This record gives sequence, structure tokens and C-alpha cells, in this order.
Amino acid sequence: MTSLLDIETPAAIVDVARMQRNIARMQDRMNALGVNFRPHVKTTKCTDVADRQRAAGANGITVSTLREAEAFFAAGYDDILYAVCIAPHKLARARQLRDRGCRLTILVDSIEAAHAVVEAKTGRDPFEVLIEVDTDGHRSGVGPEDARLIEIADALHTGGAALRGVLTHAGNSYELDNPRALERLAEQERALSVRAADRLRAAGLPCPIVSVGSTPTALSARALDGVTEVRCGVYVFFDLFMTNVGVCAIDDIALSVLTTVIGHQHDKGWIIVDAGWMAMSRDRGTARQSHDYGYGVACDLEGHPIKEGLVMIAANQEHGILAARDASVLSLSERFPIGTRLRILPNHACATGAQFSQYHAVADDETETWIRFNGW
Amino acid sequence: MTSLLDIETPAAIVDVARMQRNIARMQDRMNALGVNFRPHVKTTKCTDVADRQRAAGANGITVSTLREAEAFFAAGYDDILYAVCIAPHKLARARQLRDRGCRLTILVDSIEAAHAVVEAKTGRDPFEVLIEVDTDGHRSGVGPEDARLIEIADALHTGGAALRGVLTHAGNSYELDNPRALERLAEQERALSVRAADRLRAAGLPCPIVSVGSTPTALSARALDGVTEVRCGVYVFFDLFMTNVGVCAIDDIALSVLTTVIGHQHDKGWIIVDAGWMAMSRDRGTARQSHDYGYGVACDLEGHPIKEGLVMIAANQEHGILAARDASVLSLSERFPIGTRLRILPNHACATGAQFSQYHAVADDETETWIRFNGW
Repeated sequence: MTSLLDIETPAAIVDVARMQRNIARMQDRMNALGVNFRPHVKTTKCTDVADRQRAAGANGITVSTLREAEAFFAAGYDDILYAVCIAPHKLARARQLRDRGCRLTILVDSIEAAHAVVEAKTGRDPFEVLIEVDTDGHRSGVGPEDARLIEIADALHTGGAALRGVLTHAGNSYELDNPRALERLAEQERALSVRAADRLRAAGLPCPIVSVGSTPTALSARALDGVTEVRCGVYVFFDLFMTNVGVCAIDDIALSVLTTVIGHQHDKGWIIVDAGWMAMSRDRGTARQSHDYGYGVACDLEGHPIKEGLVMIAANQEHGILAARDASVLSLSERFPIGTRLRILPNHACATGAQFSQYHAVADDETETWIRFNGW
Repeated sequence: MTSLLDIETPAAIVDVARMQRNIARMQDRMNALGVNFRPHVKTTKCTDVADRQRAAGANGITVSTLREAEAFFAAGYDDILYAVCIAPHKLARARQLRDRGCRLTILVDSIEAAHAVVEAKTGRDPFEVLIEVDTDGHRSGVGPEDARLIEIADALHTGGAALRGVLTHAGNSYELDNPRALERLAEQERALSVRAADRLRAAGLPCPIVSVGSTPTALSARALDGVTEVRCGVYVFFDLFMTNVGVCAIDDIALSVLTTVIGHQHDKGWIIVDAGWMAMSRDRGTARQSHDYGYGVACDLEGHPIKEGLVMIAANQEHGILAARDASVLSLSERFPIGTRLRILPNHACATGAQFSQYHAVADDETETWIRFNGW
């Protein structure tokens, strides 16, 4: 893998073999559960990755911004779900995508937004809309038993929008770390979204789609009766946070940051590298989990953790400080001299990826550059 | 300030009047202390901002990456200090800048890097080099009393590099929050860097430059005898972290994130906005300070904090959750209906700015777009 030595540091490295394994694992699971799989491309924002998810059997994509929708539509993706409740002023931009032939589905969770969608309807092509349902209390969505669920659906349907169904995201799964609790939350996510769908149908309203998902629940659900599609994103790269949740192993993590040793503080056992928080992101998600990995775990160029347990214990903008869990490590400057290249596994692949405008995808000693887009 | 209503959200907004006040305050202080001021452009990565710092009297710039050096050199800045100890493989790229006429100064803190600099010397133009001195134990640098200080300097000087002096950054100032402690650390930063310079001179080595700086120490130093230049960056925007350090007020903060209300959770008193951690960054620096501001403080469109004390208590990738310190705030959907625009003051201007590729600079109701570059 000598080609990594020719890449400027810091850089975002994708281990393509690990990524393909992650893609196959999730797609196989979704196939076995009998649901459509619509990956969330907010993690990678990269058509080279999405192409591989699609080739494995994914059908449609999920996005977190209209910028993603526009970029993926330009790359030939035309079945796109924008899974953040829409701000009314963004309806004009969403309309442009539909007018250009993109089958864009939008999301609402309030009567105000439903009215805005109805008012913004122009031409013959109504907006396709899902209603966000809150199945775990962590963020957005209307409760499955809330009277407003029917009011919103009715406002959309009678107003002429194309009501397509319900959507939920069990984001609380990120707080869990044992299989039974994850399985219970996956079942709660399924059951409450199906309950919301049943209420719509009982009220005579259309609900062909029941869309659920998060990486931990998607990997923990035993059955998905009544669910039509699953969405999730971070599974494609995984990260240290997900190892603590318990849904992947360290050697499943497909994203790392390539860095160079630029100094030492011998008395303290510190190795200074040229990847700081600008490269790793400020995400310290593992700080509140069972195992705190600092800003990341140092690996050799092949992607295997350094056996002494080197962790990035602190980071400034362009400096990372690595220290060994095993404080007896001596002769740091001999073992990791200035100029040594290392790879750092990140806490959170979505946040670390966002710090870069390209990935270096490494497969069989060959390196390709894959463009990533950011912004709104 | 109606033009803010025409900007897509989320967006990075610069209050130009506040920024100009911050620029004048720092430059006046540096003039009074009798030192050259070399702003650190890593905070903004924006030539429109640097042009204003230069117009106020700044002389030369500091950068954290060679990408910054290249971009600012292309924009007409030719006196550039790259203030991160250089990785040996980056010397070729640094050399290209010098060959093109950029007066680039580089940094080392080890005998290994000094040897690499000497070996990389080509042509008639030697590298100009500073030695990083560790004056507070927070990161890189060689101790002012360390025997290696003289060894490094001697290796550079006798090897044919242009030894220019010493540099320090009292990063521990970010951990402080009272004026006396800040003043003491500023004096420590000054005294130990001057001590390092004196040792070099006593050994017959050149040391024309003594470069110090961090925003808190630059604003706290009583005298800078023996120091020739000061560097700092975040002062130009300031942020909530710096209000807790005690070197600025809330209404000095010149950077904010424009966002739109997209939903509510009435029972919980939550307002959901379309700026999550992708816009704010994952920086939670104020979590360990005297006042924890979550992911940021919500302001009205004029940039004044909402009187109920709305703070972003949680963030997902494209969702922020605002809640009031005063839990008695009722009728959120009446006071902040869907579609309302707000501005969020950030914890850390360097990290929040990095999430954007442009700023919307607002002055006298006029808005300009200023490009920001990222990456390495």
C-alpha cells in the first residue's frame, strides 16, 4: 500500500474492501427482512459510494439537504427522499427539482408546513410528502397517537399534495449499547410507525410508505412487518461510536484520516501529528460512551490499530496529540519518528468525512480520488 | 436588514461592524505595546477579512496549512509564517512557494526536522526558520532551558538555513477565565520566549524574531519587552468560548449562523431549526467552562440574544434543538413560528467558520459574499 505515502496529509482514506463488506452486510439484511433499502447519503455525500450501494441493491436515496438532492440528481439519481422537515422558503427550490424530473419526496411534521406545501403546489405535479412520526422522543415528528397526525395528513391529502405515508428515525438508538435494548427500540420504531400508518388508513387516507431507520436499529430489527423501507447512512463506513453501540467491530471501520508525525514531547509520551480537529472534526461522541477513544484510534498504514493502544488524546486545529494507553511505551521517536504516516479511525464518520472535499479510496494497493460535496 | 431573508439557510453571517471593532481593538493594543501584529488567518481563511486586518496595520500573516499559504500568496500576501512544525515531506511544497517569490517562514521543534530542512535546501535561497518554544506545556515546542534548543538552532545555522528566531503559543490561555491569571500567563509567554532568544544570542546564534501569541494573552499582556511580534486569530470574530475566558462580550461576536425554524415539540418547549452540527460544528468547548452555551446562543436577525435565553441544547447533522433557559416560555409556535429566521452565536468561530465555503458579510443592510477556502 505504498501509494498512501504519496498522499498529502491530512487526508480522508476509504478502505474499499471494508466498505463493500459493510454494504453487502446491510443489503443482505434488508433483503432478508423483505424491505426496500434507501441509504442515507449524508454520511458520504459521494456518488462513487452511492453507486456501489445501488449496485448492491439499494433503491433510491435519502438526503439531508437540498444541495445533496441537487448533486445526486445531477449524477443520475432521481428517486430522492429529503428527510428533514422542509422550511417553507425551500419549497421553491424543491419544486425546481421536481420540475426537472427528479422524484423528490419531502417531509413535514406540522400543520403549518402542510399548509405551506399545499399553497406552494403549482402546475400538474403535486409534491410527494411523508409525515414525520416521533417514535422515541429524541427530536422531530408528531406522536403516533397525536390528533395532529390525522389533521396534517388530511390537510395534505385534501389540499392536493400526494400523501405518501409516514417516516421515523429512532435516533435514540445511538444512546444504547446492548443488543436486547437495540432490538426493543427497533421493534418500538417499527410498531409505532406502523401504528401511525394504520391510523391514517383507518381515516381513509393513503399511506403506501412506512419508512424507518437508523444504523443501530436496522442492524438489530428481528422483523419489519408493515415497514416498506429502511434508511440509514453511517453503516457504510462505521466508526468508533458504532463500535461502542455494539453494531460493528474496529476492523469494520472503512474511513480513516491519514496523518504524519511532526513532533514528540518525550517526557510526556506524546506524539504530535498533523491531523487536528480540523481533520478529525470536533466530534467527541465516544466521550460519553463505555469506551472513550479521544479524537480517534491510531493505526498503521494497513489500518490495524497500533498495538500499544495509541489514542488521540487532544487536538488543536492542525495538531493532534497521540498517547499510548500503555504508559510504558518508550522510545517514541524511534518507534514513530518524525515523518511516520499513521491512519486515525474517527469517532463519527459523518462528521469526519465532512471536513474533507475528497476521499482517497484504497483497494488492492490502488488509490482513486472520490469527490465529496459539502454545504447547502 | 431584510436582505438576510433572501439568504438560504443555514449560512455563515459576518457582522462587519463588530468585526471592524475587533480588528481596531487588537491593532490599537499591538501598536501601544510596540510590536508587529501578524494575524492568524486560520480563523477566517478569507482574504476579504485579511485585507481589512492589513488595512488596519497588520503586517504579514500567520497560517496553519500550506493550502492557506498558497491561497493567500495567490491573493497578494507574500510575508507568510506557517506556524505548525513542518512535516519533512512538505518541504518540497514549501520550497515551491519560496521559489515563486513568497517569503514563507517555516517552523521546527526537533533536531530531526532541522536536519530535514538543511538537507532540503536547494538553490541560493535558504529556508527562513523559527524554532517553536514550549512556554506552557500544552502542546509542541522545545523547552526554553532545554539543551536541544541550542542544538536545533546550531544545526539550522551551521547547515545554511536562515535562522530567524523563536515562536511560542500560550494555548493554555484558553483554559483560564480571570484577568490576573491571563496576565500572568501572558507574562510567562513573554518571559520564557525572550529567555529562549537570549540563550540563542548568548550562543552566538541569530534571533531577530521573538513571536508570541494567543487571543487571550494578546489582550492581557501588560508589556511585551523583548517580543517583536504577536500572532492571534479568533479575536477577529470572537465567540462564546472567548466570552467565558473573559476577553470579549457577547455583542462583540461577529460570526453567527443564520437558520430557519422548521418545527416545534410543544410539550418539551423545543424549537427545531435547520442548523445542526454540520453548520455549527461539533465544537462543545463551552461545556467545560463556567457557562455552557450548548451548541450556541439564539439571536434575532439584528444579532441580539433572544431575551428568553434560547440556547441550542442539542444538535443532529441538520437539526438543532433550541430551548429556553426560562422554562416558562409558552406559545413557542406563536413567538417563533415555522419559517422564523434566527442567528446562532457559535462556541468556537474557527470551527464553525470551517463548516462553510463562504460568508455573508452584512454591513449597513448590504450583504456581500466573501469566499472562504478549506482543506489542505
